[in-house]
Amino acid sequence: MIIGVIGAGEPTPEIYSLAETVGEELGKRGVTLVCGGLGGVMEAACRGAKKAGGTTIGVLPGNDKSSANPWVDVTIPTGMGHSRNVIIVKTAEVIIAVGGAYGTLSEIGHSLAEQVPVVGLKTWEIFREGQKDKSITIAESPSDAVEKAMNMLNESNIVKK
Amino acid sequence: MIIGVIGAGEPTPEIYSLAETVGEELGKRGVTLVCGGLGGVMEAACRGAKKAGGTTIGVLPGNDKSSANPWVDVTIPTGMGHSRNVIIVKTAEVIIAVGGAYGTLSEIGHSLAEQVPVVGLKTWEIFREGQKDKSITIAESPSDAVEKAMNMLNESNIVKK
Amino acid sequence: MIIGVIGAGEPTPEIYSLAETVGEELGKRGVTLVCGGLGGVMEAACRGAKKAGGTTIGVLPGNDKSSANPWVDVTIPTGMGHSRNVIIVKTAEVIIAVGGAYGTLSEIGHSLAEQVPVVGLKTWEIFREGQKDKSITIAESPSDAVEKAMNMLNESNIVKK
Amino acid sequence: MIIGVIGAGEPTPEIYSLAETVGEELGKRGVTLVCGGLGGVMEAACRGAKKAGGTTIGVLPGNDKSSANPWVDVTIPTGMGHSRNVIIVKTAEVIIAVGGAYGTLSEIGHSLAEQVPVVGLKTWEIFREGQKDKSITIAESPSDAVEKAMNMLNESNIVKK
Repeated sequence: MIIGVIGAGEPTPEIYSLAETVGEELGKRGVTLVCGGLGGVMEAACRGAKKAGGTTIGVLPGNDKSSANPWVDVTIPTGMGHSRNVIIVKTAEVIIAVGGAYGTLSEIGHSLAEQVPVVGLKTWEIFREGQKDKSITIAESPSDAVEKAMNMLNESNIVKK
Repeated sequence: MIIGVIGAGEPTPEIYSLAETVGEELGKRGVTLVCGGLGGVMEAACRGAKKAGGTTIGVLPGNDKSSANPWVDVTIPTGMGHSRNVIIVKTAEVIIAVGGAYGTLSEIGHSLAEQVPVVGLKTWEIFREGQKDKSITIAESPSDAVEKAMNMLNESNIVKK
Repeated sequence: MIIGVIGAGEPTPEIYSLAETVGEELGKRGVTLVCGGLGGVMEAACRGAKKAGGTTIGVLPGNDKSSANPWVDVTIPTGMGHSRNVIIVKTAEVIIAVGGAYGTLSEIGHSLAEQVPVVGLKTWEIFREGQKDKSITIAESPSDAVEKAMNMLNESNIVKK
Repeated sequence: MIIGVIGAGEPTPEIYSLAETVGEELGKRGVTLVCGGLGGVMEAACRGAKKAGGTTIGVLPGNDKSSANPWVDVTIPTGMGHSRNVIIVKTAEVIIAVGGAYGTLSEIGHSLAEQVPVVGLKTWEIFREGQKDKSITIAESPSDAVEKAMNMLNESNIVKK
């Protein structure tokens, strides 16, 4: 079971804290976390996951392994810049977006295009023709986000069987 | 001068027609058009551009050049799936989004992350913390979209000089 | 410590067996193995590594996690075809090439270009202007290949410190 | 008709001159040239092509269009580093390798893996199990290289029809 956590490299302290709790909740449940491997939300989520004994994968945009945050277990340097966002999305079975800047928006787009479900915590809302697109499942708290992601993951595994 | 046109592979007839006019307006102005090279909005824009004597580049997700629409002049097969969206954005100096599905949303995110300006015609609207993000410049018509894109392109070239 | 094992998807039984022993020797030494995740040499190396209690990463060319061989622990689907070869090379600190087809030749080229050392076991030999290029360190057996790779890895880590 | 020219970024003056003549011969025949867009062999080939009125495409490893040599007509910045080598190979119908360093070796490997024919002029020779692999067609001069590439291109187009 792998869940992706996406979000900005320079979040507010509130968002950093939410992402850390998301990581911790994932670690407690034995879910592997995949993310972009850098700072901010990525760092917070990895830190939380390691605190709870979880496993973390960081898919880096650059070439330098030392750019990964210290809580990444498996470091994948791609040297591909933002093209690596697609790899994060494909590696995850469900995505949790916490806050987020434009890179996060691109990842939400890739996830929905690839039919990887997205749970959003204080993240982007998207509208088409004046109507809200409800593909992003809204969560109220880190534990709610992880609960919803786990349910989606279990449903998707039942469908596969 | 290169402008990117992004949008869905299976648009409504109205959106197809808008994209064709966008392409035509670009062709008239001697601007090269870059897009994803496939059908729908991509095809419509290329078709319009060629009608007006323009030049078109198609950056394909797959390996097969014959998947390009017949109005693509320069075909770049990448074999990289949606990772190629980043290449479209980097090749363009300004992006015009016409309608659009989730792939288009990913391209809007990549454009804004890479500081490539985006003009939107009946496309996604994006909100953060209940506030509309105004980075997407709204256009009212194909000619308005192209006018706005040309102005951005000229401003950006003045800054560079 | 991560070592990459590269080689053909459809090797001879002899090469398959050599790759399995390479994997086993890596697993015994607690080295993580990264490879392309598919069959043939990739499968053999992962199988050997798991037999010895090692950890394996498979960076897949396609989108489908189920195309990974059963001995891959961490599956990274890229959807990028052979462009993923570069990611394998960047993830590894040293590469061991066992036999190999043209895809392996591309990976040897990428490794040497990125200054990732290459050990070769019954693999390509390369010549320029009638002279053999000695950048590929030749190994006589799986254990010799792993010994040489471990030495390179230790030297490179000393340099970094 | 598109032919790729690959080779080192820092060639000897002799190789630079050969690549320029290859570009010129391609331009005379109205063949579009695709390359990596940077200096050295890439620059020489584009320069030759433009001298003869040809068209050139440069698929850059970086993000910055200004890193393209001045003889590139269509600039595609990928931001993907050496992963862009695969795109050059897929865009070409035949590849001509002139001299070359390790990046060129990776491109030869990708070409042969993707069944894109390779003509070599003073480039790598590759051996497997002590036997020379004859997949690289050896040329004696720039015009010989272009003649051989044109023949391959015509044969491949006949097969497709």
